[in-house]
Amino acid sequence: MEQRLSLVTLGVTDLERARAFYEALGWKTGAQPDDETIFFQAGGIVLALWDRSKLAEDSAVEDSGGWGGITPAHNVRSPAEVDTLIEEARAAGATIGREPEETPWGGYSAVFIDPEGHPWEVAHNPHWTIADDGTVSLG
Amino acid sequence: MEQRLSLVTLGVTDLERARAFYEALGWKTGAQPDDETIFFQAGGIVLALWDRSKLAEDSAVEDSGGWGGITPAHNVRSPAEVDTLIEEARAAGATIGREPEETPWGGYSAVFIDPEGHPWEVAHNPHWTIADDGTVSLG
Repeated sequence: MEQRLSLVTLGVTDLERARAFYEALGWKTGAQPDDETIFFQAGGIVLALWDRSKLAEDSAVEDSGGWGGITPAHNVRSPAEVDTLIEEARAAGATIGREPEETPWGGYSAVFIDPEGHPWEVAHNPHWTIADDGTVSLG
Repeated sequence: MEQRLSLVTLGVTDLERARAFYEALGWKTGAQPDDETIFFQAGGIVLALWDRSKLAEDSAVEDSGGWGGITPAHNVRSPAEVDTLIEEARAAGATIGREPEETPWGGYSAVFIDPEGHPWEVAHNPHWTIADDGTVSLG
């Protein structure tokens, strides 16, 4: 198995609301395969929005209805960018789960929760490198 | 917000078991910040394994205990590679949630479920392009 992800799908109950939220954050949709799937080209991977019950069935799992042990993160290049992005998320309708704060690992981070209940950590990690194209490298 | 992800963290209850599973699939760990976090450089993003209860607290959510609406996928370059990877996952201890099959959207896919209950779709999508470096492009 090559050491990479290709796609992360977020299950949603209200596709248009979810799409509008990510578009309010400045994201642009890519080629749409049908009326029920939204794709965003996100660097070298794809982020998709799709009906949560269909995703559960397709993923061969039972939906426990809440959070299920996976959290995506978006790293930025400075603590100030964490503050800015959290304000943008708040304005776009996110719930702020954790306001920006210094972390025990020497970084600075916060959490926003999208309208479907999916949390995103927004972090500045001074131990990692973010290239001009947004790709992240460990240590 | 730049249109990208930096990190996907999988919450786990048995870190060593989870690490052993991904290592059995051929993944190599990157720089470790401490004894409780495992990082894998996965193309231009990072995949992390971390204690699920700590991740829930850090993500400002309640853990519903099962699957929670997010499924990662790993795309490959041919249907045959789906078959091969599913056999590798089975041998590494995964549960196969869905055996390889043709999909309604003209692809070929299957699902394996890791020892912590996280499903991964393994897919060949003939509408997408996979570059030599593994990055995926829409249509």
